[in-house]
Amino acid sequence: MSKKYVYFFGDGRAEGKAEMKNLLGGKGANLAEMTSLKIPVPAGFTITTEVCTAYYDNNQKFPEGLREEVKINLAKVEEVMGAKFGDSKNPLLVSVRSGARVSMPGMMDTVLNLGLNDQTVNGIIEQSGDKRFAFDSYRRFIQMYGDVVLGLKPMEKDEIDPFEAIIEKKKEQKGITLDTEFSADDLLNLVTAFKQEIKNQLNTDFPENPVEQLWGAIGAVFGSWNNDRAIAYRQLNNISADWGTAVNIQAMVFGNMGNGCGTGVAFTRDPAIGNNIFYGEYLMNAQGEDVVAGTRTPQPINAQQKGDSPLPSLEEEMPEIYRQLLDIREKLEKHYRDMQDVEFTIQKDQLWMLQTRSGKRTAFAAFQIAVDMVREGLISKEEALLHVKPEQLDQLLRPIFDSREKQKAIEEGRLLAKGLNAGPGAAYGKVVFNALDAEEWADQGQEVILVRIETSPEDIRGMNSSQGILTARGGMTSHAALVARQMGKVCVAGCGTLKIDYKKRRMDANGTVINEGDYISIDGTTGEVIQGKIKTLPPEILQVIINKSLKPEESPIYQQYAEIMSWADEVRTLGVRTNADQPGQVTTAIAFGAEGIGLCRTEHMFFEGDRIDAVREMILAETEEGRNKALAKILPMQKEDFMEIFRVMDGFPITIRTLDPPLHEFLPHSEKDIKNLAGRMGISMDTIEAKIESLQEVNPMLGHRGCRLGIVYPEITRMQARAIFEAACEVTREGIKVMPEVMIPLVGHVKELAAQKKLVDEVAREVMSSNHMDLKYLVGTMIELPRAAVTADEIATEAQFFSFGTNDLTQTGFGLSRDDAGKFLRYYFAQGILDNDPFQQLDQAGIGKLMQIGVENGRKTRPELKIGICGEHGGDPSSIEFCYRLGLNYVSCSPFHVPIARLAAAQAVLKNR
Amino acid sequence: MSKKYVYFFGDGRAEGKAEMKNLLGGKGANLAEMTSLKIPVPAGFTITTEVCTAYYDNNQKFPEGLREEVKINLAKVEEVMGAKFGDSKNPLLVSVRSGARVSMPGMMDTVLNLGLNDQTVNGIIEQSGDKRFAFDSYRRFIQMYGDVVLGLKPMEKDEIDPFEAIIEKKKEQKGITLDTEFSADDLLNLVTAFKQEIKNQLNTDFPENPVEQLWGAIGAVFGSWNNDRAIAYRQLNNISADWGTAVNIQAMVFGNMGNGCGTGVAFTRDPAIGNNIFYGEYLMNAQGEDVVAGTRTPQPINAQQKGDSPLPSLEEEMPEIYRQLLDIREKLEKHYRDMQDVEFTIQKDQLWMLQTRSGKRTAFAAFQIAVDMVREGLISKEEALLHVKPEQLDQLLRPIFDSREKQKAIEEGRLLAKGLNAGPGAAYGKVVFNALDAEEWADQGQEVILVRIETSPEDIRGMNSSQGILTARGGMTSHAALVARQMGKVCVAGCGTLKIDYKKRRMDANGTVINEGDYISIDGTTGEVIQGKIKTLPPEILQVIINKSLKPEESPIYQQYAEIMSWADEVRTLGVRTNADQPGQVTTAIAFGAEGIGLCRTEHMFFEGDRIDAVREMILAETEEGRNKALAKILPMQKEDFMEIFRVMDGFPITIRTLDPPLHEFLPHSEKDIKNLAGRMGISMDTIEAKIESLQEVNPMLGHRGCRLGIVYPEITRMQARAIFEAACEVTREGIKVMPEVMIPLVGHVKELAAQKKLVDEVAREVMSSNHMDLKYLVGTMIELPRAAVTADEIATEAQFFSFGTNDLTQTGFGLSRDDAGKFLRYYFAQGILDNDPFQQLDQAGIGKLMQIGVENGRKTRPELKIGICGEHGGDPSSIEFCYRLGLNYVSCSPFHVPIARLAAAQAVLKNR
Repeated sequence: MSKKYVYFFGDGRAEGKAEMKNLLGGKGANLAEMTSLKIPVPAGFTITTEVCTAYYDNNQKFPEGLREEVKINLAKVEEVMGAKFGDSKNPLLVSVRSGARVSMPGMMDTVLNLGLNDQTVNGIIEQSGDKRFAFDSYRRFIQMYGDVVLGLKPMEKDEIDPFEAIIEKKKEQKGITLDTEFSADDLLNLVTAFKQEIKNQLNTDFPENPVEQLWGAIGAVFGSWNNDRAIAYRQLNNISADWGTAVNIQAMVFGNMGNGCGTGVAFTRDPAIGNNIFYGEYLMNAQGEDVVAGTRTPQPINAQQKGDSPLPSLEEEMPEIYRQLLDIREKLEKHYRDMQDVEFTIQKDQLWMLQTRSGKRTAFAAFQIAVDMVREGLISKEEALLHVKPEQLDQLLRPIFDSREKQKAIEEGRLLAKGLNAGPGAAYGKVVFNALDAEEWADQGQEVILVRIETSPEDIRGMNSSQGILTARGGMTSHAALVARQMGKVCVAGCGTLKIDYKKRRMDANGTVINEGDYISIDGTTGEVIQGKIKTLPPEILQVIINKSLKPEESPIYQQYAEIMSWADEVRTLGVRTNADQPGQVTTAIAFGAEGIGLCRTEHMFFEGDRIDAVREMILAETEEGRNKALAKILPMQKEDFMEIFRVMDGFPITIRTLDPPLHEFLPHSEKDIKNLAGRMGISMDTIEAKIESLQEVNPMLGHRGCRLGIVYPEITRMQARAIFEAACEVTREGIKVMPEVMIPLVGHVKELAAQKKLVDEVAREVMSSNHMDLKYLVGTMIELPRAAVTADEIATEAQFFSFGTNDLTQTGFGLSRDDAGKFLRYYFAQGILDNDPFQQLDQAGIGKLMQIGVENGRKTRPELKIGICGEHGGDPSSIEFCYRLGLNYVSCSPFHVPIARLAAAQAVLKNR
Repeated sequence: MSKKYVYFFGDGRAEGKAEMKNLLGGKGANLAEMTSLKIPVPAGFTITTEVCTAYYDNNQKFPEGLREEVKINLAKVEEVMGAKFGDSKNPLLVSVRSGARVSMPGMMDTVLNLGLNDQTVNGIIEQSGDKRFAFDSYRRFIQMYGDVVLGLKPMEKDEIDPFEAIIEKKKEQKGITLDTEFSADDLLNLVTAFKQEIKNQLNTDFPENPVEQLWGAIGAVFGSWNNDRAIAYRQLNNISADWGTAVNIQAMVFGNMGNGCGTGVAFTRDPAIGNNIFYGEYLMNAQGEDVVAGTRTPQPINAQQKGDSPLPSLEEEMPEIYRQLLDIREKLEKHYRDMQDVEFTIQKDQLWMLQTRSGKRTAFAAFQIAVDMVREGLISKEEALLHVKPEQLDQLLRPIFDSREKQKAIEEGRLLAKGLNAGPGAAYGKVVFNALDAEEWADQGQEVILVRIETSPEDIRGMNSSQGILTARGGMTSHAALVARQMGKVCVAGCGTLKIDYKKRRMDANGTVINEGDYISIDGTTGEVIQGKIKTLPPEILQVIINKSLKPEESPIYQQYAEIMSWADEVRTLGVRTNADQPGQVTTAIAFGAEGIGLCRTEHMFFEGDRIDAVREMILAETEEGRNKALAKILPMQKEDFMEIFRVMDGFPITIRTLDPPLHEFLPHSEKDIKNLAGRMGISMDTIEAKIESLQEVNPMLGHRGCRLGIVYPEITRMQARAIFEAACEVTREGIKVMPEVMIPLVGHVKELAAQKKLVDEVAREVMSSNHMDLKYLVGTMIELPRAAVTADEIATEAQFFSFGTNDLTQTGFGLSRDDAGKFLRYYFAQGILDNDPFQQLDQAGIGKLMQIGVENGRKTRPELKIGICGEHGGDPSSIEFCYRLGLNYVSCSPFHVPIARLAAAQAVLKNR
């Protein structure tokens, strides 16, 4: 902890600056920066975030010396503002606000008008010449202080605020309905009544001493860092509990002191669509809350936004102030090189800036602004790349709900539930409760939403036929979520409040019953599930690059996307591949810029068409001969799949993983399905049930899967290798370039890989020699077990490439089942033990350490070893940056994550320069 | 691979020596050594094990240059022996034998009398003057060659050997029954018939060319390295498939050339009980196989072994040869400094030694011999320590079956099944099929064997009441096996052929039905399950140190044990602790020399008495308040447990692990038990069933357990901490010294530990301050997750000690569920992918690497960090040696493994000097 606790700003001089966000919080750092830029900012000072951390480390006590520093800085503020804290003639009033490293809007506490008491209020009357204003400020202060600092607030959710109760009573007495109808005396009465209420309820006096008020407020703001709302917000936004908040103490300025006063908020550009216009609104004679509260209709800031508004704009009403604001707008954009979101107050014809920060914007706006700013020469291409959040790209690539229709539905009470936003986008359809129905209904041209308690691999075709998938169980990496994202399907997962009754073909959502065939709409970007049908809008980019229903020049959004992607490709060094195993997915991925397949799962192919029966026959066979017979049926089908994919990928490398999941996943589970299968295969149900029983495992994740299948049943690996190499030879004859990379999963020991590689090499030699060809191919392995990572030097003696399977590496490295972790991980977030879900964002300190050991050891043996990642993390920007730093060659992600990965890979280079 | 393929020995000169076992195999190395010692050994040479490895690596081709070297060395043998290979006057005959690094008796192939053909047989007639001998040798050679080299052997198990069929036919023709009744001409006829059979069956001629014969035999011996028997033997004995076998080609000498000939085997000391007497037997006019085959009763080697035998001893029959043998015995023991197992042949009054090796011995003999040899001044104490196998100690510490009674039972067909030898020792009792019955029957004074499909923690008390435990499912580290070993119970686990029917209270063992109440006997040392009751003998050492029913001076075995243990303690540097959680176990462990508890599992205590109901009440409670109420009931009981243990351990450190297993393990599973519990608790069965359902997990091993329990339910950790520190304060007042070490399980992230440590420290402060005491204690963690190992530097900022939980570290590091691995690991052994079960013997290359990273990282933060191991590997000698090399402070193992660990720890020091 540094020695300095407090940073002053005011009168064009500031001890802090914008770069000091971690220490001063975003608000404090930017107030300091604006001050140094000679922009008018009320003087004040910032207590650092380190004080907050120390406060919590030290049993909620302030560090030694803080009081002295605050005193000194308060004196400086008094000097600059020409007023005195606690003075009865010309009192200084201050605001006390939180300010974390990143904005946490509304989550923490604020106290305004601090410094008022029975004496100083007279000074305010004198200064403002407005008794009513002074008493109103005073009663607001007591109300806020009582709530925030003294904790006098409703205990129950539906209880009325004790201060509001007094106000209501007063209104009744007076027979009025609006606050504004109170006279100055009424407000003074309220002040007295509020103080009495505090005394009655808390058995303590409201503190008249401004210094005591100030320390109470500082403590309350620090305390609010750990209120429930703030903790919840941090979890949602990956904000560490360790960061702490700063406290900003700043001279009050008033936009509600009568004429020539006002307050407003503005964006330096349009945050919704990104146009280069000054965008904002304001209220005359009002305080900041009034703009946000929406009780009065705000006025437009300028002519461009006036539209049909009968109200005058700021530009018309106070042209000089507007001109000053325009200057500040330009200054800020030039200085910050980004679109800003500002707050301002006009006190008696003087403009004061109270906040500036990087403005939040939609993806559409982000792209427009980035491209425009480069064109305007304001920023470089590299900076533009850093202005667009990779995650936001998702927004451009998903169908979206018409927001007005959705809002209406919610207002009508049609929001059924909220789950995890597992597959972004918007979809509606008729509810079906099983995968077969989904297929059938879809074949009949109906739009369906597949609703399941959870999904399994046998649901794949049904999932593919659906507009969207909704599940009651499972997390962000559950089967439903994983497959949905790879398919680009909308998915809401883990919607625990839904009671799904398969037998009755209906579900109950908090009392609303939805039957099979009823329409629902699901928003995979927000997790909302809504009754009925809500109109969707198709994303333009897809219309251009996939459907070709729109020409590039017809879509400005596409053009911005394409431009930024081309800049990203110039900068990035990491390759970007895709995880895909269907020709359609592959086509999409290539349109999105994938440069190869990093993970082609072969098991999904096993569910296509009628081949699942052959797969089941193989599993049920008791002899190698029986298995070979069944495998011979699968071979031509699997070969056909590979040929299709090879044709699409012409020239790009393709990593094909041999069979990975435990065999029981391929067997039916319901009695009906078992009966059907028994009938088709001419065997008894008992036989099938006995096999299912024998394949059951205590911990399937750590069981008989991955290369362990190929070691027990080498004939499976041989069949798959044969399908790959026969397909490769055949398309080569068609003039297609093929570069297969055979990947052996779940290797823990070099000898496992050696044994499987031997089989693959044997079959490859055999097939190529009978085809008189000599194709290049590689055999490599997943690094997805800790043992593989720490013995990577040995494994690299056999492996010609590595691909990190970070899903399983996270499960085994952490000893954490992703199917079970949901139940207790929320306690981890609540207690700050983990800041985010390691299945969504790579745990760099731990799992990343294993990866680092794997990379270093692997390249010790093979310095040029090609290393990629094909876990879900391959589509996560922070994880991609980590992969870049580790020196990986490529990342591989689902098709819809490919543009995200391209952008994140470029940012990784720029951030690490 | 070294350049030299072949090592010569003969005439007092040898290129090899005893230390070259890895290169020359045990047999070859010792033949060379004996030759150099001027002991009479027929000349010969050894083809190295490296040739075998190269042979397999190179598609079963001999390396370049081998033929030349063999030729040169064969010439040397000819010179020394004064005979010529293939010569028709004075032919050299050779034996071709395998010889691996460690002895694999009978597993690989041998060819004797090689060099015989229609010409050379005449030379043998001439040399021996015995036509019958010559033709008998010839027909034996063809028979052996046809079988071993040409592969002419029965195809089916019950088919008769084709050569034996010819012999039988011949006997029928002649009306004789014994081989010895054949005349020389009969034998010549057999030679012809054998050759014809080979021609008929294989369409190839028997090779007359001795050089061709030789290469055929060499190839066959190499080939036999990978026959089924050899592979199976290697798996059982942890022999690596990579080692390969050497081939020994040695001049034949004949013990069956008439008078003045004989052959025998001997041990330089008694291998059964260890007495210092020359121990052996021989046959006059016989070949080696005859001694082993048991068709003729062998003669005693000397008077001491003569007993009631009417046959003359070698000492009487050939006193000069016996004297020579005695000299050789002394020379070998002095030279090898160990008891030897030798083979000899007397050919026409000349003694030839054909083999020497360290003699296998019982544990009793091993101890006696080691102690004697030190007393005799033959070896040092350190060498004596290396002569005793730690694993053998187990034999001394277990009740044993009367071997004659057991043999008789097996001969009577009462062997019911064979399972895993999960808990060594011998036990018999009446069969019961559930834990409650076991308790009840035992309370009535009956001896019971608890037979379960598998056991679970709720069976603990029943297990404790039983003489032994038999399960149908589960491996060496299944619940039954783990608990049995810790309890010192006899256990046979995973006996898959048993069909157990709980309802009918009976089991079916391959058709034999055993009902409840029937007697069975189980041998936990061999895995045998036998019908009926077999007498057991109690181990003396236990009678001395635990039961005190025998005085030390009354038990020579105890004295030897005590002496060797005291030597071990002088040498070892590793501490030895025990895994124990019951006062009885702790007492045993201390008697065995434990210096503390390395793992006190607190969950076992939860099953004691009526407290399980309180535990269930806690689990079923829906609020923290409800849980606290239930925990308050458990607190005094758990405190009482700790007090008892503290009293026994007075002064020794005790590592207490907070609650580890998933909560569902504490809930009942059968409908009856659920109903009972619901009745007792006054809640509905549905409530309990819903809870059980909600606690179910996909991968319980990676689920809600370990410190994750304490993070979700901090009140559990607090209760446990309170019980520990209240107990500590109370016994301190009694004058007992307490040193508690609180261990947090399943930590993956430093913040998990920090959160739990905070709770423990808070409670500790509270309890100690209200007791006005200040006791020393530590808080540390298990390192049992890969993430913990790689972030051990961070974890050590909080942890005051580490203890490796290598069971779970193996599961997560390998991604291998120990409950499920059994199904496929056998394929791994068969294919040489793994040499042994990583749950039994620490996988040093992989899991050991994680440990090494953990140790290095942990001590980077805390150089003096105390580190132990408390996984099952803590009792495995090779793993203990690895822990020593890693620099661990102590190992902890089950009470009955403590002496093993003490000895292994001493050996670790000696082996790494």
